Amino acid sequence: MAKDFYGELQLGILGGGQLGRMLIQEAINYNVNVHVLDPDKNAPCRKLCNRFECGSLSDFDTVYNFGKELDMITIEIEKVNVDALEKLEDEGVLVYPQSRVIRLIQDKGMQKQFFKQNDIPTAPFQLISSKENLYESTIALPYIQKLRRDGYDGKGVKRINGVHDIEEAFTQPSLVEELVDFEKEIAVIVARNDRGDVSTFPLVEMEFNPEANLVEFLISPSILPFEIQTQAEDIARKIAGDLQIVGLLAVEMFLTKEGQILVNELAPRPHNSGHQTIEGNITSQFAQHLRAIFNLPLGSTAARSTAVMINLLGEAKYEGLAKYDGVEEVLAVDGVFVHLYGKKYTKPFRKMGHVCIINDDRETAVKNARWVQETLKVKA
Amino acid sequence: MAKDFYGELQLGILGGGQLGRMLIQEAINYNVNVHVLDPDKNAPCRKLCNRFECGSLSDFDTVYNFGKELDMITIEIEKVNVDALEKLEDEGVLVYPQSRVIRLIQDKGMQKQFFKQNDIPTAPFQLISSKENLYESTIALPYIQKLRRDGYDGKGVKRINGVHDIEEAFTQPSLVEELVDFEKEIAVIVARNDRGDVSTFPLVEMEFNPEANLVEFLISPSILPFEIQTQAEDIARKIAGDLQIVGLLAVEMFLTKEGQILVNELAPRPHNSGHQTIEGNITSQFAQHLRAIFNLPLGSTAARSTAVMINLLGEAKYEGLAKYDGVEEVLAVDGVFVHLYGKKYTKPFRKMGHVCIINDDRETAVKNARWVQETLKVKA
Repeated sequence: MAKDFYGELQLGILGGGQLGRMLIQEAINYNVNVHVLDPDKNAPCRKLCNRFECGSLSDFDTVYNFGKELDMITIEIEKVNVDALEKLEDEGVLVYPQSRVIRLIQDKGMQKQFFKQNDIPTAPFQLISSKENLYESTIALPYIQKLRRDGYDGKGVKRINGVHDIEEAFTQPSLVEELVDFEKEIAVIVARNDRGDVSTFPLVEMEFNPEANLVEFLISPSILPFEIQTQAEDIARKIAGDLQIVGLLAVEMFLTKEGQILVNELAPRPHNSGHQTIEGNITSQFAQHLRAIFNLPLGSTAARSTAVMINLLGEAKYEGLAKYDGVEEVLAVDGVFVHLYGKKYTKPFRKMGHVCIINDDRETAVKNARWVQETLKVKA
Repeated sequence: MAKDFYGELQLGILGGGQLGRMLIQEAINYNVNVHVLDPDKNAPCRKLCNRFECGSLSDFDTVYNFGKELDMITIEIEKVNVDALEKLEDEGVLVYPQSRVIRLIQDKGMQKQFFKQNDIPTAPFQLISSKENLYESTIALPYIQKLRRDGYDGKGVKRINGVHDIEEAFTQPSLVEELVDFEKEIAVIVARNDRGDVSTFPLVEMEFNPEANLVEFLISPSILPFEIQTQAEDIARKIAGDLQIVGLLAVEMFLTKEGQILVNELAPRPHNSGHQTIEGNITSQFAQHLRAIFNLPLGSTAARSTAVMINLLGEAKYEGLAKYDGVEEVLAVDGVFVHLYGKKYTKPFRKMGHVCIINDDRETAVKNARWVQETLKVKA
């Protein structure tokens, strides 16, 4: 199938942010005609595609009309109109990941139930339909309340420390989850193509910005014990198989202080925890996603060297036309790769770009990355 | 200077072919606004830039009007209207490489004279203004006749074996050059920024398609003796300094059977002999070109592994809508990177793409590359 596509394939991407942008950088190598739908007329992809359409990702007609002439649709964000995708699938458009997978993952409650049904280790939880339910929750306080829908990048998540916090809790459908006393947040990106080949990227370890709850620092590959790595990769592989997903799936996990792995949540698309694969691995996550959705053989995910990824977040007190301080300094260091996302305006903690730092020596990679974090700033 | 540019810089590229395309893939990381001028409305860059203008690169008004609102202009082909670039420079547009460098390199006669004046080793030559001069050339037969202007990719070059060939010789201004009995064709890409930093990529060895006179196979880094490598890199470094070029300069050389290096010709831009740097080296030639013209620190050119580049040329007997046979097979092998150039139509020996094959083991890299050459075909 795949080979007939080169030069002719009309690929739609729902969402025109940085993930779409990096996917386009890779899709150029395959002669793919890219169509992008995004509600922001200044979206990072707007000037890099065959057709850019400004419109709502949640509106049935907008998504359906955007997709009906295309051969294939993929996503760079889960919050899209799945009914429209389902109709497009019925009419023969290839939708990868499949609409049923997006529908399941859109709802964190359904995600958790899927984990439970498939014996995938995850923290104990309870679905909550109204705030009142919280008072009688079976999950012990303190716990985490998560909106079932539309949370992302740390939004839609609250820590409930005691009964006194319930007044401030979310009122929409949510779930509560036992607070995990974790040692580390880890992630595995797995890819699956339509013929059922499955391939995982090496386990990575992450650090989050406590204020913004965003990945701030990530190191690949992990040097956690081999059994942990294997176990995490096996879990990712099992989920991809259970879902029968076509495309990329990011599996975010906790490693508890007791050495247990618990799946936190899924993202069925290229993910922030895989940006370092562009320079750090033989195949990048973006190349792998394209291979998966085009039903091509999956590429080698081997690490070429230690790679550290740091997110370039808008500085806390700045809002307005973005200015980048320190680019020149950081580029003077060997193995530093700056990726800016083409966003005109910065605001506190907005993801404005990322930097990948590679080095054959792990300590040097970390040291250089910490220095880049101190040096490179997005202000206004 | 450079840091003020991110997000605001309006960069023009003269030429919208594969070199421009790969330059754009990299420029995306720097938030550069790219404007492209190319005479072909289907040029590979047409859908990947902020503004695509279809027009002649040789016409003064077209080039001048294209460039007058821009901050900076670069080229991906030398055959451009240099008078317009000179006027733009006078009016404050940054033109890198500088118009005087392009003017010199456009004329292979001036290039050879420049080599002579600057003690750069090159094959003996003589400038020829009319065909009649050929009968009294001081260069011994057989020799090579090259048009002074507009030759590229093996076009504008003839071998004159004896007096009987002179009837068929070029009639335009040309030069004749002693036939070099070479052992190998080699190349060094060198970059220089405006503050005078100079950096060379490791020496590469090339093989040409005898029928099309195009690079067909290239291996990086060279394993020629250290002295040869140093000497070639020193020559490239000296030329960049003598020219005071800003940007990338590809220096194509012959290594004679006696171990002497002779400079063949120059290209002041990203070059086919540097495509393998995308996957093979820490910094790619495209990233290095941007660093040079933005006056940023030059990046490390160290090889990450052995890399073989093969050009994907249109098969000899096919013309029409391009079809790619074997993509799926070659992608099943680890370390194979396919770059298609977005050209709708193929014709014999047209450059339709390239493949980079990396491997830590040199013999495996070569073996895999030879197999890719046999397997991947562009037909119609």
